[in-house]
Amino acid sequence: MKRKRNLYEITNFPLDNESILLHETLFHNANGYLGVRYDFEEGYPEDYLTIRSQYLNGFYDHAPVLQPENLYGLARSKEIMPDVANTQTIRLFIEEEAFSMYSGQVLESRLTLDMDKGVTRRFVHWRSPRGREAAITITRMASFHQLSLFTIEYEITPLNFSGTAFIESGHDADVENYYDPEDPRNASDANRHIHPVHCEIREETSYITAMTSSSELTVCSCVQHRLPEGVLPEFWGDHISTLTRFNLDLVEGTATGFVKYAVFADSIRHDNCKTAAAEEMVKALSLPLSDLYYKQEVYLETYWQNCMVAIDGDDEADLALTYNLYQLNQSVTKDAYGNIAPKGLSGEGYEGQFFWDTEIYIQPFFTITNPSVSRHLIGYRYHTLDKARENARIMGHASGALFPWRTIAGGESSGFFPAGSAQYHINADIAYAVIAYYLATHDLDLILLEGAEILLETARIWLSTGTCQEETFNLLEVTGPDEYSCLVNNNYYTNVMARHHLEWVVKFHDLLKLNPAYEAMVERIGLGEGEIEAFREAALRMSLPYDEGLNINPQDDAFLKRIPWDLSQIPGDHFPLLLHYHPLHLYRRQICKQADTVLAHFLLEEAQPESVIRDSFHYYAPITTHDSSLSRSIFSIMAARLGMEEAALAYFGDLIKLDLMDLHHNTRDGIHTANMAGTYLAIVYGFGGLRIKESGLTLRPMRPSCWKGYRFNLKFQDSRLLVEVDDRQCRLTLVEGSAKSIRVYEEDYLLEGRLTIPLKTATGGPEDQKSNLPD
Amino acid sequence: MKRKRNLYEITNFPLDNESILLHETLFHNANGYLGVRYDFEEGYPEDYLTIRSQYLNGFYDHAPVLQPENLYGLARSKEIMPDVANTQTIRLFIEEEAFSMYSGQVLESRLTLDMDKGVTRRFVHWRSPRGREAAITITRMASFHQLSLFTIEYEITPLNFSGTAFIESGHDADVENYYDPEDPRNASDANRHIHPVHCEIREETSYITAMTSSSELTVCSCVQHRLPEGVLPEFWGDHISTLTRFNLDLVEGTATGFVKYAVFADSIRHDNCKTAAAEEMVKALSLPLSDLYYKQEVYLETYWQNCMVAIDGDDEADLALTYNLYQLNQSVTKDAYGNIAPKGLSGEGYEGQFFWDTEIYIQPFFTITNPSVSRHLIGYRYHTLDKARENARIMGHASGALFPWRTIAGGESSGFFPAGSAQYHINADIAYAVIAYYLATHDLDLILLEGAEILLETARIWLSTGTCQEETFNLLEVTGPDEYSCLVNNNYYTNVMARHHLEWVVKFHDLLKLNPAYEAMVERIGLGEGEIEAFREAALRMSLPYDEGLNINPQDDAFLKRIPWDLSQIPGDHFPLLLHYHPLHLYRRQICKQADTVLAHFLLEEAQPESVIRDSFHYYAPITTHDSSLSRSIFSIMAARLGMEEAALAYFGDLIKLDLMDLHHNTRDGIHTANMAGTYLAIVYGFGGLRIKESGLTLRPMRPSCWKGYRFNLKFQDSRLLVEVDDRQCRLTLVEGSAKSIRVYEEDYLLEGRLTIPLKTATGGPEDQKSNLPD
Repeated sequence: MKRKRNLYEITNFPLDNESILLHETLFHNANGYLGVRYDFEEGYPEDYLTIRSQYLNGFYDHAPVLQPENLYGLARSKEIMPDVANTQTIRLFIEEEAFSMYSGQVLESRLTLDMDKGVTRRFVHWRSPRGREAAITITRMASFHQLSLFTIEYEITPLNFSGTAFIESGHDADVENYYDPEDPRNASDANRHIHPVHCEIREETSYITAMTSSSELTVCSCVQHRLPEGVLPEFWGDHISTLTRFNLDLVEGTATGFVKYAVFADSIRHDNCKTAAAEEMVKALSLPLSDLYYKQEVYLETYWQNCMVAIDGDDEADLALTYNLYQLNQSVTKDAYGNIAPKGLSGEGYEGQFFWDTEIYIQPFFTITNPSVSRHLIGYRYHTLDKARENARIMGHASGALFPWRTIAGGESSGFFPAGSAQYHINADIAYAVIAYYLATHDLDLILLEGAEILLETARIWLSTGTCQEETFNLLEVTGPDEYSCLVNNNYYTNVMARHHLEWVVKFHDLLKLNPAYEAMVERIGLGEGEIEAFREAALRMSLPYDEGLNINPQDDAFLKRIPWDLSQIPGDHFPLLLHYHPLHLYRRQICKQADTVLAHFLLEEAQPESVIRDSFHYYAPITTHDSSLSRSIFSIMAARLGMEEAALAYFGDLIKLDLMDLHHNTRDGIHTANMAGTYLAIVYGFGGLRIKESGLTLRPMRPSCWKGYRFNLKFQDSRLLVEVDDRQCRLTLVEGSAKSIRVYEEDYLLEGRLTIPLKTATGGPEDQKSNLPD
Repeated sequence: MKRKRNLYEITNFPLDNESILLHETLFHNANGYLGVRYDFEEGYPEDYLTIRSQYLNGFYDHAPVLQPENLYGLARSKEIMPDVANTQTIRLFIEEEAFSMYSGQVLESRLTLDMDKGVTRRFVHWRSPRGREAAITITRMASFHQLSLFTIEYEITPLNFSGTAFIESGHDADVENYYDPEDPRNASDANRHIHPVHCEIREETSYITAMTSSSELTVCSCVQHRLPEGVLPEFWGDHISTLTRFNLDLVEGTATGFVKYAVFADSIRHDNCKTAAAEEMVKALSLPLSDLYYKQEVYLETYWQNCMVAIDGDDEADLALTYNLYQLNQSVTKDAYGNIAPKGLSGEGYEGQFFWDTEIYIQPFFTITNPSVSRHLIGYRYHTLDKARENARIMGHASGALFPWRTIAGGESSGFFPAGSAQYHINADIAYAVIAYYLATHDLDLILLEGAEILLETARIWLSTGTCQEETFNLLEVTGPDEYSCLVNNNYYTNVMARHHLEWVVKFHDLLKLNPAYEAMVERIGLGEGEIEAFREAALRMSLPYDEGLNINPQDDAFLKRIPWDLSQIPGDHFPLLLHYHPLHLYRRQICKQADTVLAHFLLEEAQPESVIRDSFHYYAPITTHDSSLSRSIFSIMAARLGMEEAALAYFGDLIKLDLMDLHHNTRDGIHTANMAGTYLAIVYGFGGLRIKESGLTLRPMRPSCWKGYRFNLKFQDSRLLVEVDDRQCRLTLVEGSAKSIRVYEEDYLLEGRLTIPLKTATGGPEDQKSNLPD
């Protein structure tokens, strides 16, 4: 099988402001620790709006949360991801002429994201206003080998002249977070989050140490240049910025250039940021750049092997899918201090906070391709468990831990609590991801170290969020994933997920109760005599709304009372509805922002008979707006699950290029990481029909007829598997590890080497093929 | 019967800061148009916090509403009552010594509110640091005869010396609204709402014209002094303030003094404020002060006659009741541009906005004592109907009018919509008050002119707030009066009030449909063919939650699912709960901030059988915290209604002196007008058992055994009635007007002159006497 080339490239890319903002996101460089938006080093015309920013995963400041009424316990401040020092700026003067894409003439240009090499590259054939022509190639890398490191390799080839280039390379902490001046929530002043405390040039290296406004965190950035032999730089600096200036001799036809190294060290991860930054710089410079490039490539080779997924017969979709998985790796933390934000490290949408997107959309991808990432993500929650305990007290729970709906360092950062803190399902989502990690890896050690405590503490919340009535346990006044219904009773998603959570607390308890470490933990958190029994009881009696007439699970106790609203009658420019209708108008109607009950049916399919899952899908499909980017992937999976190939493909088609095509018109604020993971899930869990359960791994593959086939690698316990589906069969290969029992189409197989199983046709009847297509 | 003396007086009143703030409220002067807090003219020590303010009814500015998330349609600005120019300041120097309650020695002092004369008076026997003694008497009046006018009569009697007094009397617009610097919602700057545009002294008169920051309203205040013959004042002024300075000869043993006149004119009521203010000043000065005092007394004589209510055998309660009714008259608008705020014109609590308190608590008092005030209050709603239409559109209703939950000029000013705009019952409350006005007056003209249009437009909202399901009409996602439950389905109060509203729309329609003015209105608002029928249907099918097991009306569909919470287990310092528990904690529990279903049972008793009303009372009494001051009066009424004398009295005792005793610890922010009206209702509707229904006037009088009796006047249609209850009987007298059929204890009588009916004993069993006492 020929290895595909993972390259995303735009030739003669547009230079209008909208495209610039979009490309800042699409071509950003990140490695899970630092993220740098893709800005032209030399800058833009003055009237251009740009978001020239760089971020660090888990690094945060506080910003005030405005509340119209100071009710008890509402968040008054939030954690946000601050913009850190700018190391992007490089101004080039060829003789007296400043290089700019907006002066002279761009004869040819190319923007490349090389996903095998892990670099972005800008190539420009430029003709200056006075007719000098040069080829300029700028290569940027956020190193996966050394997470603190961002490099810019700058190369100039004069084409029709020889002469001198003057370079001015900047490093400054004069940065503020992006804000929309039309948006009264943000005051301009409040957006300057880092303040330089020390700025110096020492041994040709520029250091800026800055502190956040309120969280009192420190970050040191450090910049140095590797110049051609004999070139002597000059330095300039003030309290907030430095400049490195030097000349390069240009010889017609010969490439000349330099490399700019920037490293970042923060006080979350280091005791002394400046010392750490200095050490990181020494480390970066200890290898030639080519070695760093090589390590980057080696790293990515492993990555692509682990998460290989390919569509045969749709190259565009295949490339988009690759792009998405590349971004997931750029975005996800490589330690337990960070996490993965809805926009990764590519922009400031949602202020860099972490949500349930991590556990329900993104972690499943890593769990079966790169489980060590999932360990970091679980570790992150474990490290913020104390904050979750504090949060639970604020919310009135005498014991247990309630994870915040939005957060960076563990503090609740959601302002409007009915659509924020009320989303208690976050506790069950985290539990689900821990359980899923265990099922895929059988790593009981992590459960013992971190998982069990997380599950126990979060489970306690359910018992004080609900009460038993007429033998059923009700969870009250919570908000499910669908934010077009708020503060409901017995949200099906929340309840069934809480039941799963409670059941597993009991299972793990039974599994671990004789283990001394577990016993010590249980004693530390003061687990009472009857608590395990109470968990078992609550799970047993958990209310799961069901309507006999419709044979569906209503989204909550009152969902079917709401006013029907024919989506097809709403003008197209009224979507997303939240921007055009008062929340109360939405809350009163049978309308969903996103998959809610349908998502629950995906995650916990055993909870309902097939017919209820099917009828529910058909009920919710026409009333779901997909105003959230977390929705279509789930509908695609469930359409595939129900044999509706055409619908599954239509949903998939809408989501695969969400960012590349800027379908939501907000990619400038950052990529949509959950949707990106959703595209993977749509293939592996949707068309592939993968499920990992207590009973083991199961597959129900189907092939969309417009594809020749598809294939993917996955990790399961100690083994690596290759799944290949073509027009007639599904081939399973045990690439490494021990033999595994696998269930395909409800039949059990033992996978020792290779298995070939003929494809079954869709289980859905012909009517399913036609109905419920998304718009 | 000897006429009682309506005097509230404190001798040797305390001078600590807390008392000063309390007395600023308790002794404020108001007349329904202007309100002036009671401040010492000469000022306070520098470190004292005071709220030295004056307000105009209906005059407003805008202030920003902070929202944590900019959801569609949320209020971004609110209407607030700005502080207007200060005309209180008078500094007195006796020779070189400045008079102050905080220097020298106060040998005797008295603070008096004379509720017959309509003035406040401060008497001080002062000894200066150097031993000069003087008696100082300061009398203040907000004139009921001339609403623009506030006077200060200042009299000095030297007791042990003769000499010269120097007076400096101020007028300034250097004012800002009170804010709590601890409260991050308010920025200091935003509290300066009026900005002087013109300040001048002309013909010994000081004029300051000022404009509001954002609403662009203008107010002119004008100050002049009447001085003893021969005294020549000097003037000083800048752009924001003026001073009038003069000397007075002091002769031992002889009183000498002056009068300060201040008038206000605003651009809501006048085309040219300055001209209007000048005219008002001329008018004020055209009569001697004694004539103004006389007119004030005559006005109040009529007022007290109309609303006479007296408790025989409890002088303290009687005085407190008189105080309350006096404040209602001070607070309530005398035209349709204003209304009555929860704090009247006495303070800035709730920012001077108007709520449902008007229609459900206060208007009933005026409707049966001074119906012209109710006409103004209905007129106010009618004038803001267009704003209510706009508000309905914002909330997503294609037709109809939704009155805002909090407002001054008609714009929605509530920030947290789940406990604000979601209180749709405001529409039914306004309708209820219009209907009640009609039942008490038979004034069909007002219905034709204003009432019918209000009722029709507001009724339309119900049809788009709910939907029919299984033959019952459900009202969805509203908040009832009890703000400890938000966004519920089928709140009993809202639904039964909406049903009443809808039924009366149909009744009025049947009554008026042939009237050309009504026809024209109906055409103007585009009343559709089937709308009246739809109203009838919705009323017929209106869902009214009922639980068979408990034989009660649950507060809403899900109320009984909530977690029980034993109020007696909550520490006393955790009340009001809203200051100590997260809203979600409260929403999940069976706990009420205030009367909700019990209030509905008071207002619409025919809707339920007696046993349901009784059982509901017993269900809600132990779970109601009365954290709102609107609650105890209703529980008192219903306890009386159910024959529970002891409970009724206990509730009554808690509310009658709420302000005089500062029981809620917030009277410094203003009086509690709804509670004040509630004290009246508790006697007339509670112990007196008054109801005015379509079938006429009914009474079910009872006498609390600790009182000798009680009596009250009331207006009913064209008649005035006197009701007197003593230990054995109830005596009814037709004071004026035509004979009336009256139902007492379910028997019909014709009242032509006087009727004496023996008292019935309590209908409640002995167990009712014991249980459900408030704490």
